[in-house]
Amino acid sequence: MRAMSFEKPVIAIVGAGAVGAFYGAKLARRGFDVHFLLRSDYAVVRQRGWTIRSKDGDFALAPDQFRVYNDPRAMPKADLVIVTLKATSNDVMPSLVAPLIKDDTIVLTMQNGLGNEELLAQHFGAERVVGAMAFVCINRIAPGVVHHIDQGFVRVGEFISAPKDRTRRIAEMFELSGIDCKVLDDLARGRWDKLIWNIPFNGLGAALDLDTQQLLKTEAGERMVRGLMQEVVAIAKARGIEFPPDQADKKVAITKPMGPYRTSMQIDRQEGRLMEVEAIIGYPVKIADELGVPVPRMKMIHECLALINASISAG
Amino acid sequence: MRAMSFEKPVIAIVGAGAVGAFYGAKLARRGFDVHFLLRSDYAVVRQRGWTIRSKDGDFALAPDQFRVYNDPRAMPKADLVIVTLKATSNDVMPSLVAPLIKDDTIVLTMQNGLGNEELLAQHFGAERVVGAMAFVCINRIAPGVVHHIDQGFVRVGEFISAPKDRTRRIAEMFELSGIDCKVLDDLARGRWDKLIWNIPFNGLGAALDLDTQQLLKTEAGERMVRGLMQEVVAIAKARGIEFPPDQADKKVAITKPMGPYRTSMQIDRQEGRLMEVEAIIGYPVKIADELGVPVPRMKMIHECLALINASISAG
Repeated sequence: MRAMSFEKPVIAIVGAGAVGAFYGAKLARRGFDVHFLLRSDYAVVRQRGWTIRSKDGDFALAPDQFRVYNDPRAMPKADLVIVTLKATSNDVMPSLVAPLIKDDTIVLTMQNGLGNEELLAQHFGAERVVGAMAFVCINRIAPGVVHHIDQGFVRVGEFISAPKDRTRRIAEMFELSGIDCKVLDDLARGRWDKLIWNIPFNGLGAALDLDTQQLLKTEAGERMVRGLMQEVVAIAKARGIEFPPDQADKKVAITKPMGPYRTSMQIDRQEGRLMEVEAIIGYPVKIADELGVPVPRMKMIHECLALINASISAG
Repeated sequence: MRAMSFEKPVIAIVGAGAVGAFYGAKLARRGFDVHFLLRSDYAVVRQRGWTIRSKDGDFALAPDQFRVYNDPRAMPKADLVIVTLKATSNDVMPSLVAPLIKDDTIVLTMQNGLGNEELLAQHFGAERVVGAMAFVCINRIAPGVVHHIDQGFVRVGEFISAPKDRTRRIAEMFELSGIDCKVLDDLARGRWDKLIWNIPFNGLGAALDLDTQQLLKTEAGERMVRGLMQEVVAIAKARGIEFPPDQADKKVAITKPMGPYRTSMQIDRQEGRLMEVEAIIGYPVKIADELGVPVPRMKMIHECLALINASISAG
């Protein structure tokens, strides 16, 4: 496998919802050669470009500053494929990514939860897979219009190895484009650390339709949140990833001042859209079962979310 | 203990929400001597009486057809106390009932769930306790105004014995007042049978904020409903109450044609009122623990409901 060209890499963004649009637009604004694969917003974005309303300053990206497609077979082979599909669409992900792959293509998943790197590795080989976590509060508010509300930093790491030159170069591309992006020595550790927060606040919060403040304002709620966090910590430990004993305390402490924050999963539920249940909680439960780690609270919440999702699918 | 006077019994209704108002008004309309203990609706009902909008025919009860109080110490001692408090107010129940008790007073609880007879027995002696289940869909829609939407039948049974004369006489009083009321040979069996329905549809439904149709329209939901029903059946069995193997099938079958039915607990949650969590699910979980019956689903739902209730209390 040759090294990716970083002189003028061809970058494909697969599934440009809010996250793909935001980071892709930042890369394109910096002059990178960005090719977006869109579905519902294709016609609007092709005509009007992207509009980014950001707490860091609004900007627009004209249609001649990037390329847009609604069929991956019309796209050039890419040096870097950035997958920003919602994980609920992962069943179509391999067929969307396959036409973009050449010998030295790197595939970067910026999706939520677990199992996304594994899926890419299974289809395209583990050595080309890189993972990123986007810590960003962002919404698509209209076709082609994205509202960047808070945060925005990215962490990137290798799926099956320590950081390489390519990992650092991807981080540099983001940094050059005005995005805080650091390299993680251990991507899996970063993903599990994020799950310690996501499983109670996205998972439990969406199941019960309670925001972070409602979950934490009572002892009973905080106890349940901490119980779920401890289950996540226990799975990570069985995988060889140890967190300090006060990791749950720290997560609770940073969340309390956030006020009544609705997670993406709670918002998806409220708006009748499928929630990313399997990536955020189903896959971790599967790993717990394989490792023999008891996670009764996570299992129950997973079952509840699965049934709410099924109810949303059934319409 | 002397037998209750059924010539002209003094009937006290303690906590006249929708259920107490509805049945009390029917008894008073038939000419029984009914004394209502009210809190929030006291002034309005004293002035305007009760208005019952019923699927069986609307009726009004003028203020001179009954007596109304806002302090139990102002009430006469009763031959029959009917407790229709919401079970979430059970901490004040003994102090409301105590002033009404004389040597031969019978206390009839028409509350939901488990533990209400036990609480009365603990304070006033088990031999005077009778229990009733009201199968009724009813709402208080304004002060003094109750909307009777569906059903309405009552089942009455002794707490610690087989039916007695007094049990049959209470049923007769209801029947005379136009209420379908039969005597149960085994009140506990009736209560557990009702819980087989209430724990999934009230409990799970309120925790996830899903109505009966949303719970049953998917396989995942029906599986969870049935899983909860089996846990309830298992506790009852450990208590010596056996249900036929198809009891859950029957409950599911009668519920499917009901359409999108919101239980009282889901409505309480949506309107920000305390849910009857302990009576409907907390007390059964406590019994399961005492008997060593594993009820992991019920425990988790109980914890979730407790935290939602705590969040409602905290306002």
